[in-house]
Amino acid sequence: MALIVVGSMAFDQIETPFGRSDRIVGGAATYIAWSASNFVHPVRQISVVGGDFPQAELDALAARGVDLEGVQVQKDRKSFFWSGRYHMDMNSRDTLETQLNVLEDFNPVVPERYQDSEFLMLGNLAPAVQLSVIRQMRRKPRLTVLDTMNFWMETAMSDLEKVLHEVDVLLINDSEARQLSAQYSLIRAAREIMKMGPRYLVIKKGEHGALLFYQDQVFVAPALPLEEVFDPTGAGDTFAGGFIGYLARTRNTSFENMKSGVIAGSAMASFCVEKFGTLRIQEVGKEEVHSRIRQFIDLVNFDINLLD
Amino acid sequence: MALIVVGSMAFDQIETPFGRSDRIVGGAATYIAWSASNFVHPVRQISVVGGDFPQAELDALAARGVDLEGVQVQKDRKSFFWSGRYHMDMNSRDTLETQLNVLEDFNPVVPERYQDSEFLMLGNLAPAVQLSVIRQMRRKPRLTVLDTMNFWMETAMSDLEKVLHEVDVLLINDSEARQLSAQYSLIRAAREIMKMGPRYLVIKKGEHGALLFYQDQVFVAPALPLEEVFDPTGAGDTFAGGFIGYLARTRNTSFENMKSGVIAGSAMASFCVEKFGTLRIQEVGKEEVHSRIRQFIDLVNFDINLLD
Repeated sequence: MALIVVGSMAFDQIETPFGRSDRIVGGAATYIAWSASNFVHPVRQISVVGGDFPQAELDALAARGVDLEGVQVQKDRKSFFWSGRYHMDMNSRDTLETQLNVLEDFNPVVPERYQDSEFLMLGNLAPAVQLSVIRQMRRKPRLTVLDTMNFWMETAMSDLEKVLHEVDVLLINDSEARQLSAQYSLIRAAREIMKMGPRYLVIKKGEHGALLFYQDQVFVAPALPLEEVFDPTGAGDTFAGGFIGYLARTRNTSFENMKSGVIAGSAMASFCVEKFGTLRIQEVGKEEVHSRIRQFIDLVNFDINLLD
Repeated sequence: MALIVVGSMAFDQIETPFGRSDRIVGGAATYIAWSASNFVHPVRQISVVGGDFPQAELDALAARGVDLEGVQVQKDRKSFFWSGRYHMDMNSRDTLETQLNVLEDFNPVVPERYQDSEFLMLGNLAPAVQLSVIRQMRRKPRLTVLDTMNFWMETAMSDLEKVLHEVDVLLINDSEARQLSAQYSLIRAAREIMKMGPRYLVIKKGEHGALLFYQDQVFVAPALPLEEVFDPTGAGDTFAGGFIGYLARTRNTSFENMKSGVIAGSAMASFCVEKFGTLRIQEVGKEEVHSRIRQFIDLVNFDINLLD
């Protein structure tokens, strides 16, 4: 049930209406690994960092059962850096600065001992890089999940179309689903997107939860209503980690089990937004994860009487 | 288990990105009555119409088990009229014209035979009118549910505060909850609003579903993902009718049963938006309502395995 995670490991600097972070560790693959490691071992990481990336972070991930053989360290270069500012509603943000650094020419290499992995999570990255990992796998993984974003739809659409044909599940947010499909209705958007390759589609709606689509079926997962969203950075990646982590752990890729994966992902994401960066998801353990998942069960459970 | 419904019976003229209606029958109490009549009899209506209100509409409601003794007909005046235009997202709208007409000086009278009603639904109207009905009830109903809107928060807040102290459940939408509480977080908004009187609060979020609050508990109901929202007019009123109709039918006002009421309301609202005005909710019968409620069960049901 080994899981490969591909994505950035990086630095972020974040401003929200509630405060401003220093330059802190972030990156899609960092969030995914922390989140997935609550469910599955080993998590096999593929990424690239510069000499500035803290060894203590790498050690902490390794202690959590994350295999770092696939993480290239380019001693003389700098890690990817992103800074952004969230608007008052915490659902939209402006990018203040992006420094690609080591990501500019990232050439991922799948280590030999990763080759038997059954699950592959392609975190948000250039579609050509995601495709390179898929092509290096000698055996098609049991399940490949892709995350992407609007930036690649605008700058690398033909690569993205190729990747979409190779994956089983696509995770995107609602505005990206609308952009990718040119449909406003999410039901119609899902239908169009599933024609592009993925058999399953998860549309993330932030505080409004997530939708899972398969053929003509839909599942709706709530988000946990929170008193305060402190920092939404990485919530989508944390969702992805919980989703594929749960599927890898249970080794069950049915639509029914994917519903539970969406709940596991939603539970993990609800932790992520409680503190800056990865702080909160580094803290949580099995007890807290189970208790949060139980909250999700209570949140949506009802027993209705169909009346005569 | 008789239910009193108070609210407008009126004419609407609606423009959406998909089309434009003629002057059609609408009004909060019209939608509520159609919706609630799927669950409970009698529905006892309190409203006012002008001589222009079609007798055929009144006859159709009567045939559905709606008692119209409390509906005043002012032969020489005109019914309330509203026209509006929905934006592309169908979640926001502009009012083009409002003619109060008979609503300007509406003085509701509770007929003697309504006095034994256990359930009272106060549809959106001036808070002073809602309060007048409450004061006329010789015995406090088992459950009083209030709908209101931002307009009354801006023009009649002190009356609204009085009504809030007299009701058990408040139904409002998310932007109204934020306005009423001066809190952005809906969790905090709910806490503030429940201090104003209602023990239960339903926050409607349109296509994103609804939240039910009671003490420190929350229930999240999805909206049915629809291929097309044709006309959202009356969806909130139709929700209210399904909600209180279900509670009145089951004569159970517990938090657990209120969750089912929210699902019944959501199911009814999902019909309402499929056609202009009340067209769709006039058509549906028990079979379709049950089948739609079953869709809601499938929509949120999952069976997660808490892992060791």
